[in-house]
Amino acid sequence: MIEEIRAQDLDPAAFIEAKVAEIRATVGEGSAINALSGGVDSSVVTMLGHRALGARLRTVFIDNGLMREGEPQRVVGIFRDLGVPVEIVDARREFFAALKEITDPEGKREAITQTFYRDVFGRIVRESGARYLLQGTILTDVDETVAGIKRQHNVFAQLGIDPQQAFGYQIIEPLLQLRKDGVRMVGKALGLPDEIAERIPFPGPALAARVIGEATPERIETVRRATAVVERMLAGTDAFQYLAILHQDRVTGMRDGRRDFGQQIEVRSWDSLDARTATPTRLSFDLLEALARTIIAEVPGVVSVTYNIAPKPPSTIEAV
Amino acid sequence: MIEEIRAQDLDPAAFIEAKVAEIRATVGEGSAINALSGGVDSSVVTMLGHRALGARLRTVFIDNGLMREGEPQRVVGIFRDLGVPVEIVDARREFFAALKEITDPEGKREAITQTFYRDVFGRIVRESGARYLLQGTILTDVDETVAGIKRQHNVFAQLGIDPQQAFGYQIIEPLLQLRKDGVRMVGKALGLPDEIAERIPFPGPALAARVIGEATPERIETVRRATAVVERMLAGTDAFQYLAILHQDRVTGMRDGRRDFGQQIEVRSWDSLDARTATPTRLSFDLLEALARTIIAEVPGVVSVTYNIAPKPPSTIEAV
Repeated sequence: MIEEIRAQDLDPAAFIEAKVAEIRATVGEGSAINALSGGVDSSVVTMLGHRALGARLRTVFIDNGLMREGEPQRVVGIFRDLGVPVEIVDARREFFAALKEITDPEGKREAITQTFYRDVFGRIVRESGARYLLQGTILTDVDETVAGIKRQHNVFAQLGIDPQQAFGYQIIEPLLQLRKDGVRMVGKALGLPDEIAERIPFPGPALAARVIGEATPERIETVRRATAVVERMLAGTDAFQYLAILHQDRVTGMRDGRRDFGQQIEVRSWDSLDARTATPTRLSFDLLEALARTIIAEVPGVVSVTYNIAPKPPSTIEAV
Repeated sequence: MIEEIRAQDLDPAAFIEAKVAEIRATVGEGSAINALSGGVDSSVVTMLGHRALGARLRTVFIDNGLMREGEPQRVVGIFRDLGVPVEIVDARREFFAALKEITDPEGKREAITQTFYRDVFGRIVRESGARYLLQGTILTDVDETVAGIKRQHNVFAQLGIDPQQAFGYQIIEPLLQLRKDGVRMVGKALGLPDEIAERIPFPGPALAARVIGEATPERIETVRRATAVVERMLAGTDAFQYLAILHQDRVTGMRDGRRDFGQQIEVRSWDSLDARTATPTRLSFDLLEALARTIIAEVPGVVSVTYNIAPKPPSTIEAV
């Protein structure tokens, strides 16, 4: 049973001091490794690990080709400014090869997870010689899976490390007692900029979750550009989360003065407290039309843009 | 060269008198036939033909299974109230058989046209013994096709009547000099209710043009129900045209408390003067959300509703 530290009871400075000491004591003279995604959880773990271990922590950022525009460079740049070296691993080809011809959402999720753990990060861990693996698991993640030993067991299996032979490997999860709000407090206390500490949620399968149908490099590029427009133009709103979805259905449009089939982007912007229920943000039509015109102008092949007007439930935040 | 009668120069009463006399003179003691769709053009032709020929005009309403909720009965009822008998021909099976497994929009249009002219209406014309065919062609239709003889030639070919043997058949097109606004004026002068005279445009392929992908009876029923909600809830707006589109893409939703894939309806409502350019109607979010909730509640299988926010061009009024 993990003892929760609630946000109102959290002393970030004391928490950081305790966790840094724990990591240092556990790793001793060994070395550790972790994967940074740019999300607040893995970012906080990277900072804690760096404070505890310095150069004995190796942090990798795996570019799966499914990130938002400029995201790998931006995240690595933020950590560089904080004095934390992060290594970018270009694994785009491996991810797109795994995603080829998969149209089913569960299949895409599975292909990404498998490629991440077993093929890419698993290989890096196995070849690194590091025996300590830092992970940004939070209490909410534990709630959603089986708890304790079984879960850690699964991590080894996912990494391609035979649990029978995993003797010597150890997983360190400094954020296990926190929920997202607590993690954000610790992140700020660690000096992470709001861009990271207050980052809006982003799905695990990244932009692959934002295309209906196959996640080809071309289709990911299309939704990446639309996402950039949506995030830029809705940054000033109070929305809880906003996103662009590339549909597979083709709709009629005019291209170069001729009738032609083009692609459709669906924009969703949610008002919500906790993502459990949500309603569409009541954006002005000036903004909605500007959004549509900008997406059509900046994203090749798109002739139609819609805005979600259904609440969650029965809708969900993401489309796939 | 057809001489246009512009709306501002049109005297509806004189026009009606002249056309009734023309039809009577042309048909003589023969009999005529026409197909009523419920659109303003074919409705006006039905009224003119009835005034000219009485019982010697046979008017058929072909139910292709692609009409809006209750439409065949409503149209026939309106004409019954006007004293004009209209015969409903149930051709739903023939149309759905022709549409089976066709997903391409052009293919669907072609299947519907072929089934209408060659299989259903062609057979009725050939079996009727009537040699005079009344058609609601207007000047805009002529602009959009090849003019004159060639066009009439094509009508015979479409009907399965060998143009070489078409001697004796004659097509009568009383509205050839008018455009839509003129036809509406004549319709009102003929006593047609606004529901017909001011009917919002509806695509030729009917609801088959409102589903992306295959037009099965089930999918047509889904978009029919969504269309009924949209037409009912947006009737009070000043919009030029409004419609519901059933997408083929499936999106995640919650059904009976579980994650499941459901269908998406796209609503379009257009502000426009002439359909050449158009912008989305700036509906209130109260109305948009009510629309989404009602569609989800009343249309089985739908978990998501979007609203079009792109202008025409590059979008088009209809989606396929």
